[in-house]
Amino acid sequence: MNDILELLEARREQHLREVVELVAIPSVSAKPERAGEIRRCAEHVASLLRSAGISRVELFPTPGNPIVYAERLGAAGPTVLVYGHYDVQPEDPVELWETPPFQATVRDGDLYGRGAVDDKGQMFIHIAVARAFLERRGKLPVNLKFLLEGEEEVGSPNLEPFVAAHKELLKADVVVVSDTGMLQKGMPSICHGLRGLAYFELVVDGPGNDLHSGSFGGAIPNPANVLCQMIASLKDSAGRVTIPGFYDDVVPLRPEERAALAALPFQEEEFRATTGSPALAGEEGFTTLERIWARPTLDVNGLWGGYQGEGAKTVLPARAGAKFSTRLVANQDPGKISRLVEKHLRSIAPPGVSLEFRQLSGGKPFLCPFDHPYIQAAKRALEEGFGRPAVFIREGGSIPFVATISELLGVPCVLLGFGLPDEHSHAPNERLHLENFYGGIRSIARYYDALAGI
Amino acid sequence: MNDILELLEARREQHLREVVELVAIPSVSAKPERAGEIRRCAEHVASLLRSAGISRVELFPTPGNPIVYAERLGAAGPTVLVYGHYDVQPEDPVELWETPPFQATVRDGDLYGRGAVDDKGQMFIHIAVARAFLERRGKLPVNLKFLLEGEEEVGSPNLEPFVAAHKELLKADVVVVSDTGMLQKGMPSICHGLRGLAYFELVVDGPGNDLHSGSFGGAIPNPANVLCQMIASLKDSAGRVTIPGFYDDVVPLRPEERAALAALPFQEEEFRATTGSPALAGEEGFTTLERIWARPTLDVNGLWGGYQGEGAKTVLPARAGAKFSTRLVANQDPGKISRLVEKHLRSIAPPGVSLEFRQLSGGKPFLCPFDHPYIQAAKRALEEGFGRPAVFIREGGSIPFVATISELLGVPCVLLGFGLPDEHSHAPNERLHLENFYGGIRSIARYYDALAGI
Repeated sequence: MNDILELLEARREQHLREVVELVAIPSVSAKPERAGEIRRCAEHVASLLRSAGISRVELFPTPGNPIVYAERLGAAGPTVLVYGHYDVQPEDPVELWETPPFQATVRDGDLYGRGAVDDKGQMFIHIAVARAFLERRGKLPVNLKFLLEGEEEVGSPNLEPFVAAHKELLKADVVVVSDTGMLQKGMPSICHGLRGLAYFELVVDGPGNDLHSGSFGGAIPNPANVLCQMIASLKDSAGRVTIPGFYDDVVPLRPEERAALAALPFQEEEFRATTGSPALAGEEGFTTLERIWARPTLDVNGLWGGYQGEGAKTVLPARAGAKFSTRLVANQDPGKISRLVEKHLRSIAPPGVSLEFRQLSGGKPFLCPFDHPYIQAAKRALEEGFGRPAVFIREGGSIPFVATISELLGVPCVLLGFGLPDEHSHAPNERLHLENFYGGIRSIARYYDALAGI
Repeated sequence: MNDILELLEARREQHLREVVELVAIPSVSAKPERAGEIRRCAEHVASLLRSAGISRVELFPTPGNPIVYAERLGAAGPTVLVYGHYDVQPEDPVELWETPPFQATVRDGDLYGRGAVDDKGQMFIHIAVARAFLERRGKLPVNLKFLLEGEEEVGSPNLEPFVAAHKELLKADVVVVSDTGMLQKGMPSICHGLRGLAYFELVVDGPGNDLHSGSFGGAIPNPANVLCQMIASLKDSAGRVTIPGFYDDVVPLRPEERAALAALPFQEEEFRATTGSPALAGEEGFTTLERIWARPTLDVNGLWGGYQGEGAKTVLPARAGAKFSTRLVANQDPGKISRLVEKHLRSIAPPGVSLEFRQLSGGKPFLCPFDHPYIQAAKRALEEGFGRPAVFIREGGSIPFVATISELLGVPCVLLGFGLPDEHSHAPNERLHLENFYGGIRSIARYYDALAGI
């Protein structure tokens, strides 16, 4: 194993440079005008894979962004399917970045840039490791397949059809994903649960035009007031979602799970400080970790309506809207939740407004047993790679693909993620802690090696 | 009188052209970058007054936009102070205008353009009438003073100090204002009541950055959800404002006033169709006219927060904000209401957020007896100018100056307005019905003439 680890160690600077090059391509999937950059990024990733010595590299078109598929087979060990994504979140609000979002910059041991941690830097780890094996040994310890998509940040609309149509191509013994985080600095983690997502847009339509608030105020329903009332009514004073049926399919936390969560060295005050929020708050009767890992929730992601410029404009807005989303837990289904949300909103809309409602994205939650040998091997690889004990955690975010592929291919998913909770993955100043980047490279190398022996 | 009316009639085309020239100057007072246009508009108005033969025309600087003052004295009749404003509302959202907001265009008997009715077109009526008298007779039937400001659309912050400091200059027997509307087409109206205004901005601040809604959703107060809850709670299910003390100073409608309002030929369905709103709604226990003329209300004017772009961005916004305003009725005081609103908001803000609150503008409500001889003369002038019976109405909008000057100078205010309810005065496609423009010119000419005989 030392041959590989030494080569990887010698390449630290090169690896960093290669991630900077990936970040430099603004592959923002939420912005249609960036389609060209998405394409360029897919081609760049493909050429990285080719130059790593992966024999088959192919761009599969989809109705949206292309999927980069690659494979190097012929090993005696099991087949590993690596999932990652080369698209990134929008950079807005761009004025809050300390350095330009697409010019990745190292400061104090962190690499700052959009996609540094989510997921370009982490996806790259697997490419670097495969290259090192092929260069030093001429072969890989496992059969390796790469499935790298360009639509994760918009809910992976084209991934499920692709996987369903290419089950044979994607056949594997285990799926490995590096797109999650560690519990805290110095604590390598294996994630065995992810929340799902159902993301909505609601527009409340009222008068035909913006109206003078003096001439008409008081006599017609104001769509912005109605929007606030409707959104406010979706949660009660205990922080519970009020939509009928919303909790019906939630798998409750078992007492032993609650005890395991409580035993984790989770620093609540440190977590709060990370958010910059003056206080933590959430659903009554649950701890903070339970709230973010094992309970569904409903949050507004965007609000708009009427006059947002400087000064005072006395209008009644013709319409107002919100983007909001529910994070889901096993076994809530995003499609079913979407129907419940829409039905409820329509039932509470007052006369005098009309609603436009649509689901913008969705993904199933994921929960997996952690006594599987592939997962136990991952724990050892992490502990060797970082020289520290590893823990089992869940993650509040969503990777819709994980539940989908696990279901479609009938194999376990192992989530080995190297992000940290304060790395602003969907906000300005996204970053990747470089120690975890290099620790991740060592751990993944050891993991591939270990899988060959199972 | 026929000499004047004939001259005015012969000048129809010229009058229209002159209003188009006024509209062409984008004097938007809410936008600091338009300060140059404001200045240009003030100078244009001054030169119109000078060329009309008004002997003294002066621009008075203020800490904000200049006030145009003009006077022509020496008549035997009483002194009339004409108030108007040369600033206009912002043109946003500009993409909804059918023709460019600052290129006034005639379609189907209406002049479309920002400021056409509010207030450039109406203000111009008085200049045109004065010019006709001076040209034809060499003198005016009354002493005439003009007070034309450039900050009406941002709450007239510098007008009260100016009036207080120039009481002698502005001394008059009656103030005449053409900045209101007629009840409906073909029904000339005198307005004897205006609502006041207190306009606020509320920002709810939460986490230090936008946060990933998966990693943190459920564990911290979401400022956008909190904003919706706070705004929603400001009105109850009966449409009443819930802020303690809000209604304390409201002068209740007397039974005879309610009967007079009910007797007006108000077409509720036509009013609804004008708004484009699918239904009317408001405070329980009051009619539509009572709701817009004689009851205070609270409306959201603008909402913002989080991601407003295309697609789905899964963030918890760091902050969210609303512009909202209360329309006030006699004897509510905007300063007192502002204190009540802020105190209440701070009392209901949940832990984990901080509030920024400020009042952006305000103006007192106005209510005046309609048996004064100057008001009775106005009724006759309107009936002659339009050839139809005139009615007494109120107006839901605010002209903060009216209450202020009436109080400071101790004289009645006569509100002779020629707008119509569906003229989009604060919205895209603002317009002025040309029949009312020409009828207004005839009526004001007759009114000045009649005042000379009182």
